[in-house]
Amino acid sequence: MSDPAARKAPAPAARQAAEAAAVARFRLRLTKGTHIAVGPGRIELLEAVRDAGSIIAAASDLGMSYRRAWMLLDDLNRCLRAPVVESVHGGAQGGGSRLTATGLELVRLYRRIEQTAARACGEDIEALKALLD
Amino acid sequence: MSDPAARKAPAPAARQAAEAAAVARFRLRLTKGTHIAVGPGRIELLEAVRDAGSIIAAASDLGMSYRRAWMLLDDLNRCLRAPVVESVHGGAQGGGSRLTATGLELVRLYRRIEQTAARACGEDIEALKALLD
Repeated sequence: MSDPAARKAPAPAARQAAEAAAVARFRLRLTKGTHIAVGPGRIELLEAVRDAGSIIAAASDLGMSYRRAWMLLDDLNRCLRAPVVESVHGGAQGGGSRLTATGLELVRLYRRIEQTAARACGEDIEALKALLD
Repeated sequence: MSDPAARKAPAPAARQAAEAAAVARFRLRLTKGTHIAVGPGRIELLEAVRDAGSIIAAASDLGMSYRRAWMLLDDLNRCLRAPVVESVHGGAQGGGSRLTATGLELVRLYRRIEQTAARACGEDIEALKALLD
């Protein structure tokens, strides 16, 4: 293999990619030691529980197994100072799960940070995308 | 399996994680279609080439195979409007690789965006970390 710059004929996947517009996306991760505590996947899951009203419906909406959803939420509950999800007993739906005040605050802060970051860096992100398009 | 909030005795990994301080890290990814064009790993590789002066030395510094480093750089060269890495022939080191002006600009913009984002979101990130610590 020689210098990458020397080989210029694009492979099909690269050519297809070259034709699509560049999209920039921030992902914020919070780690504790080597453990990923909060990341985009977990926030998406919390939003799904908030919207669907149960873990099983949220998992189904995301095409995720109930077991995996449960384990991610269990881990979140352990990582944070207070649980993010709690059981709802009885009522018209016969029970389910909902976000606690901590869970709602976690989602709100996470999404606001993404928006603030995208706004603050708008000019540089456009310059970066211009290198690709 | 019942409600995650109900089971509170922490597993050893979670307990260890609970004791570490939370660290927040932005990762910016630029995609074209389904293809990840620019992300943290590629930027780190470009910085290693810039600092080491060759792809083989950069790969070694990152504990990556030469083949993988070459393929990532080749893909970057194809994704961008202009190559990011070029060969250097002759000289005291007997040749190697260096970043082009485009490659240097890519790294500069990417790192500046990360810093701007972290600064702009400082207060919300502290609030998010406070939910974990």
